[in-house]
Amino acid sequence: MKTELNPDVSAVLDAIAERMLTHVFLVACGGSLSIMYPAKYFLDRHSGSLNSDLYNADEFACRDPRHLGKSSLVILCSQTGTTRETVRAASFARDRGAITVAMTMEPGSPLEQAADHVLSYQAPYTTGVPIDAADSNYAVLYMLLVGLLRQRENLDLSAPLLSSLSSLQPAIDRAKARYDDLFERFSRRFADRSVIYTTASGANYGAAYSFSICVLMEMQWINSQAIHANEFFHGPFEVVDETACFICLIGLDETRRIEERTRDFLHRFADTDNIMVLDAAELDLAGLDDAFKGYLVPLIFFDALWVFAYKLAGLRGHAMLEARRYMKKRDDY
Amino acid sequence: MKTELNPDVSAVLDAIAERMLTHVFLVACGGSLSIMYPAKYFLDRHSGSLNSDLYNADEFACRDPRHLGKSSLVILCSQTGTTRETVRAASFARDRGAITVAMTMEPGSPLEQAADHVLSYQAPYTTGVPIDAADSNYAVLYMLLVGLLRQRENLDLSAPLLSSLSSLQPAIDRAKARYDDLFERFSRRFADRSVIYTTASGANYGAAYSFSICVLMEMQWINSQAIHANEFFHGPFEVVDETACFICLIGLDETRRIEERTRDFLHRFADTDNIMVLDAAELDLAGLDDAFKGYLVPLIFFDALWVFAYKLAGLRGHAMLEARRYMKKRDDY
Repeated sequence: MKTELNPDVSAVLDAIAERMLTHVFLVACGGSLSIMYPAKYFLDRHSGSLNSDLYNADEFACRDPRHLGKSSLVILCSQTGTTRETVRAASFARDRGAITVAMTMEPGSPLEQAADHVLSYQAPYTTGVPIDAADSNYAVLYMLLVGLLRQRENLDLSAPLLSSLSSLQPAIDRAKARYDDLFERFSRRFADRSVIYTTASGANYGAAYSFSICVLMEMQWINSQAIHANEFFHGPFEVVDETACFICLIGLDETRRIEERTRDFLHRFADTDNIMVLDAAELDLAGLDDAFKGYLVPLIFFDALWVFAYKLAGLRGHAMLEARRYMKKRDDY
Repeated sequence: MKTELNPDVSAVLDAIAERMLTHVFLVACGGSLSIMYPAKYFLDRHSGSLNSDLYNADEFACRDPRHLGKSSLVILCSQTGTTRETVRAASFARDRGAITVAMTMEPGSPLEQAADHVLSYQAPYTTGVPIDAADSNYAVLYMLLVGLLRQRENLDLSAPLLSSLSSLQPAIDRAKARYDDLFERFSRRFADRSVIYTTASGANYGAAYSFSICVLMEMQWINSQAIHANEFFHGPFEVVDETACFICLIGLDETRRIEERTRDFLHRFADTDNIMVLDAAELDLAGLDDAFKGYLVPLIFFDALWVFAYKLAGLRGHAMLEARRYMKKRDDY
């Protein structure tokens, strides 16, 4: 059980302790960008001194925000540490005088070399080896943010975060067990569909985004969009008919009523057999502190949905990690 | 020809002249939210004193960002002034002590009543009556932002903005003429397709977003997603095959190379007959100042694409403004 922030998180915090910071830039691409959404949600809710922005890495470098400079902390993430846009963004931010922190699974990777500091994490998805979610990208990022607030704002959320992280993997395992029947049913239902949308808001939006673009589109070649659960009512909902397929994430943060409203609409106007709902209120989250449930639920959802994705892939005969047209198949685009 | 900011813009600026402001919140839903993307891009590029965030209106109210308060300017937009989430967000922000500015076409609407100040604008889309784009939502918003920077940061971009706005409508009209053949060809090509994606980055992203969710999804019931042109390479591009349909926006801001890369990829790996490219470099933008081309191009694209949408709707026999399942057909969700 963790009782202290990870050593590399503490080392970063020590190194920047004297630095005046006003802005946090959260920078990555694709799935690694998706974890920045709940991070920004956390900062928006809790930080009185730090503004934050979230950008795709290449957008960030081209946009060159005027606030980027010596008072900026730029947090970047790339699983392999080789994502070219993210490596370039790290160098770019460093040239602008910012402090750069690279999150990656690969020590010694180009991203680590381009940044001032590195935080390592683990991921269960690519290797198949079970990990403890307390060592995942989400967890490490929350540790860094909680550490920043403890250091700068007289707000110490480290105890509830660390105790929650110690109970996270069991909560994920229970969620997977609980969703087993649901995933079985909906994987059969969705196996032959060509369009599947996800909906979410608040801290969950990133998980919906990652599932749509990295799992459904990249790994299964299924058309998708992560629709913000309120934006849904301002255009997207008009595509809803008896055949429309949706995955609705319903979390425990302050935006929950937005996600509930979308579910209620879909249950009323779509075929309920096409609407897969993951509602965190139905999960056993024993050991998670109320202050962090909303922030950790997207991690639980995303990890559980990985099981769903494998079921779907099996039925569709479309290998999750091998079937690619372009990614890692060619290097010339 | 405009030589001064609109009187209601000047009135707002006068009213807030003495107020210390550190944060601009850009708040709306759907199509009205889409214009906030280039506004944030403009602030990111130019403002040294104002941080900015962009939120769906209901997300904003639930999230309740800690920075929201007396030093905040909250700019809200709703065409009809009746969007419930946006009206609620205005009241919410006002209760938090922020200054609220409502952009709407309807004076006396609930949004105007909920906000401290109002800015009126015109839109060509719903009435069919030709307007001057210098009076559109984008134009009014840029006037407000340029006015803020003139007031607070010793940066006066009002002359190039106003001269550009005076040349905007002719530039739009020329763009429509130029795209006539392209739109004719691609409306026939896309008429029977069930999925059409848009790609863009930087100041253009909002136009792509609005076209995807308000035009393709809402008005034509076509599945879509506005894919950020670099995020495209981190998942979404795996759906690209010989049948995939894309609309690529290529603008003139600092992110242009991102949009070009996406186009180049699609031209190489998709069927070029399914890839409709709008490239601002091919347009006659006489009279637009270089400092504002990048910011006004999305308006030109979106306005021109409206012509494309009508052609598409005609071929599909799917009325643009009348064919709705839910929006304005029922009021009970």
